Amino acid sequence: MLTRVHHVGIAVVDLDESIELYRAALGAELVHRARNEKDGIEAAFLRTGDGEVELMSATTPDSPVGKFLAKRGPGLHHVAYGVSDIGGALAHARAAGLDLIDSEPRMGMHGSLIAFVHPKSMGGVLTELVQT
Amino acid sequence: MLTRVHHVGIAVVDLDESIELYRAALGAELVHRARNEKDGIEAAFLRTGDGEVELMSATTPDSPVGKFLAKRGPGLHHVAYGVSDIGGALAHARAAGLDLIDSEPRMGMHGSLIAFVHPKSMGGVLTELVQT
Repeated sequence: MLTRVHHVGIAVVDLDESIELYRAALGAELVHRARNEKDGIEAAFLRTGDGEVELMSATTPDSPVGKFLAKRGPGLHHVAYGVSDIGGALAHARAAGLDLIDSEPRMGMHGSLIAFVHPKSMGGVLTELVQT
Repeated sequence: MLTRVHHVGIAVVDLDESIELYRAALGAELVHRARNEKDGIEAAFLRTGDGEVELMSATTPDSPVGKFLAKRGPGLHHVAYGVSDIGGALAHARAAGLDLIDSEPRMGMHGSLIAFVHPKSMGGVLTELVQT
């Protein structure tokens, strides 16, 4: 059902500095950068071969990423798995008793269909499904 | 330099329950399970397409994973990127000023060459390089 680890989401304090760190230290190249005022997030997607890192900064302290940074500090925020059929994957997850944040797929910042599973269903891990 | 997101490492309280959760909810199949008494860890590797999840439990409370669980609770622990040349990747990371936990590659639990970069160099993210 899963095709790969699509990306990891990482909460960062300074987006420009973090992009430069991943570029200089790991050779990860920026492929997309977007700002979503509604969710209070600015994100940068960097290519790590056949996978990506999503660096996420808060545009306001009371956004979800802002609250995450205040509570836990910068670091790993979520993991996203690639799926070939997100509708089927969500139905499977629901049947297994998972608590879905998104009961239906929605469009992500990167133009893919995404859905999040609640971390309380996944041992504290905010888990995303992505169909590209 | 990076080939993919090789795996994500997740600290869990109960390894058997967590393996069953990933199998039932995401269709991830167990490929390898190993116990390392020296590091106080029992780990299970599950296939997520062209990537893996490493579920990690503590065999003693004073092990690194045990301390992580006590401090932060279960959840995302580290991310590992595949590299084609781990020696070159480490030299590159060192030249970029990263603080390496492993200055030389060592054998991981899964039979691959691995090296960890200190989270303080990577914005709070414990980062692993893996050459399979």
